[in-house]
Amino acid sequence: MSTKAYAARAADSPLSPFSLSRRDPLPNDVLIDILYCGVCHSDLHQVRNEWHNTVYPCVPGHEILGRVSKVGKDVKKFKEGDLAAVGCMVDSCRTCPSCKAGLEQFCETGGTVFTYNGPDKHLGGVTFGGYSENVVVDEAFALKVSDKVKDLAAAAPLLCAGITTYSPLKHWKVGPGQTVGIVGLGGLGHMGVKFAHAFGAHVVLFTTSPGKAEDAKRLGADEVVVSKDPDAMAARARSFDFILDCVSAQHDVNAYLNLLKLDGTLTLVGAPENPLPVAAFNLILPRRNFAGSAIGGIPETQEMLDFCAERGIGCDVELINIQDVETAYDRLLKSDVRYRFVIDMASLKN
Amino acid sequence: MSTKAYAARAADSPLSPFSLSRRDPLPNDVLIDILYCGVCHSDLHQVRNEWHNTVYPCVPGHEILGRVSKVGKDVKKFKEGDLAAVGCMVDSCRTCPSCKAGLEQFCETGGTVFTYNGPDKHLGGVTFGGYSENVVVDEAFALKVSDKVKDLAAAAPLLCAGITTYSPLKHWKVGPGQTVGIVGLGGLGHMGVKFAHAFGAHVVLFTTSPGKAEDAKRLGADEVVVSKDPDAMAARARSFDFILDCVSAQHDVNAYLNLLKLDGTLTLVGAPENPLPVAAFNLILPRRNFAGSAIGGIPETQEMLDFCAERGIGCDVELINIQDVETAYDRLLKSDVRYRFVIDMASLKN
Repeated sequence: MSTKAYAARAADSPLSPFSLSRRDPLPNDVLIDILYCGVCHSDLHQVRNEWHNTVYPCVPGHEILGRVSKVGKDVKKFKEGDLAAVGCMVDSCRTCPSCKAGLEQFCETGGTVFTYNGPDKHLGGVTFGGYSENVVVDEAFALKVSDKVKDLAAAAPLLCAGITTYSPLKHWKVGPGQTVGIVGLGGLGHMGVKFAHAFGAHVVLFTTSPGKAEDAKRLGADEVVVSKDPDAMAARARSFDFILDCVSAQHDVNAYLNLLKLDGTLTLVGAPENPLPVAAFNLILPRRNFAGSAIGGIPETQEMLDFCAERGIGCDVELINIQDVETAYDRLLKSDVRYRFVIDMASLKN
Repeated sequence: MSTKAYAARAADSPLSPFSLSRRDPLPNDVLIDILYCGVCHSDLHQVRNEWHNTVYPCVPGHEILGRVSKVGKDVKKFKEGDLAAVGCMVDSCRTCPSCKAGLEQFCETGGTVFTYNGPDKHLGGVTFGGYSENVVVDEAFALKVSDKVKDLAAAAPLLCAGITTYSPLKHWKVGPGQTVGIVGLGGLGHMGVKFAHAFGAHVVLFTTSPGKAEDAKRLGADEVVVSKDPDAMAARARSFDFILDCVSAQHDVNAYLNLLKLDGTLTLVGAPENPLPVAAFNLILPRRNFAGSAIGGIPETQEMLDFCAERGIGCDVELINIQDVETAYDRLLKSDVRYRFVIDMASLKN
């Protein structure tokens, strides 16, 4: 099956049209015609080989939303015409304790197969992502999307930006009566604000950009603290139950650890390149936790999609054509997007 | 009341005889004649002004065990002749949520009064610790010591080294079926091994000194891993439920974070001077926690002392005379003690 896509041929070459092969659907596979694909910062890291492991040509994209056009004979979850989505993973070992617990992203055999640049056990080579006409995936790694969802483009980035913020807020039981901080108002942070608000917490957005205050409140923040203001930070010492740190750049986590109450947790979902220095006394007096979280498993991703469909929650997106993806990358590097680019895959036909 | 003690007069002068005043016992106070006082590394930090806050003369000592010789008229917990102990704290605000919860070490008003070098609200100046004949303390901050305890010298360091390791092992619910690591076999670490073993965990001691292996097993370790051996460390990746890090010197916590299972916790009870670099991916893949813990509150310290009395658990100590404390400090700096110096306070009369 020949599929139109956009690929990077090398770390320093722009994405351009590419033709790839998808496998014919196996008995448990679904073929999904892609309608929208979100643009995640990981796409940019991968195509530019910033993680030093990229296999070229590379077709990125792991915030995939589309419509099922073919199902294998044993498929139970989907029928032709259903909405469906694919996130960061397309397979895992499915037998280790983490996989059995629905935490396939933490597969203990190292068997997590990422949606792009992962080993493709069917065709050899690497997996190709969602910057393409369609994708073939085992139904176990495809998500159902409710017909209640009206804005399909806004739902696509839920598959990465959504689940990455939803999962830690659920895991650390964020809810009413709690003061919760969200650090950074980007693709992840804006969903962190929406979810923490939806879960009933008092939400404080930390940003280096005073200009984002109004937007943060529109998205659900109760308060905004400019993190460059030392007095404002000092005034909030020891007052947070939970802080979700969505910053991928190097930054001082001690400034936020110090804001946690006794037994509060700061969870990192961004992954700065270099180690972050942590002062022991910030964890000891009082007793505090510094943690991390990575996307979410398939069952929780489904739960998140259903929650969003029920509550009418989507990402704030800017729709682009695939031909404009390099411009979008340039703007992403300048944080010039509110808050996620989504590719209208119909533009592949242009 | 004039009390014999040993004090440092300056950061660079050795401890020497000193006469101090204790207050006359108030209605809720007990006067404790000190039998034994443990030597904690904090004593050394404080007398040498390594925390830059020492008020001289300084009388250290916060692992205090003795016998009640006088009680105020409202005292209920103690009578004359009872064994009693005092740890790191002698007061707190007693009204904030942390104090109400029995976590006086985390007093939210900053009201924790440490046993030495803390503000003395009764006499002015600073509090004087246990390198002295006696101490006067509010019964709320004095611990009961069971008559079942046969080796009183071995019980004294429970007041700091004991509770500092007992509290996190309890807080993170260490128990049967778990694999638990203890990093470092010093004053804290040797009690960590004893408690983790007593709680039924499979205990692995990490040490840089292969020579400590036999001793670690005698103390309760099931296995010993030499942390300088990269193959031995790699073989234990992702296999620990909980790790108690008892190292106060700078060290690489990433090497231990990497050994935790999904949702495992590494808790720091030592406090290295400089921030510890933490690689984000060690917290994210899989989801892990890096935490801290400081001593324990009064109710939990009592629970720990009762647990030790019941199980016959004490510290491994080397008894010294007060006149030899500077030699003990020198040996402490070389980790040349198995595993805690305890001062026989009868030597004050020499």
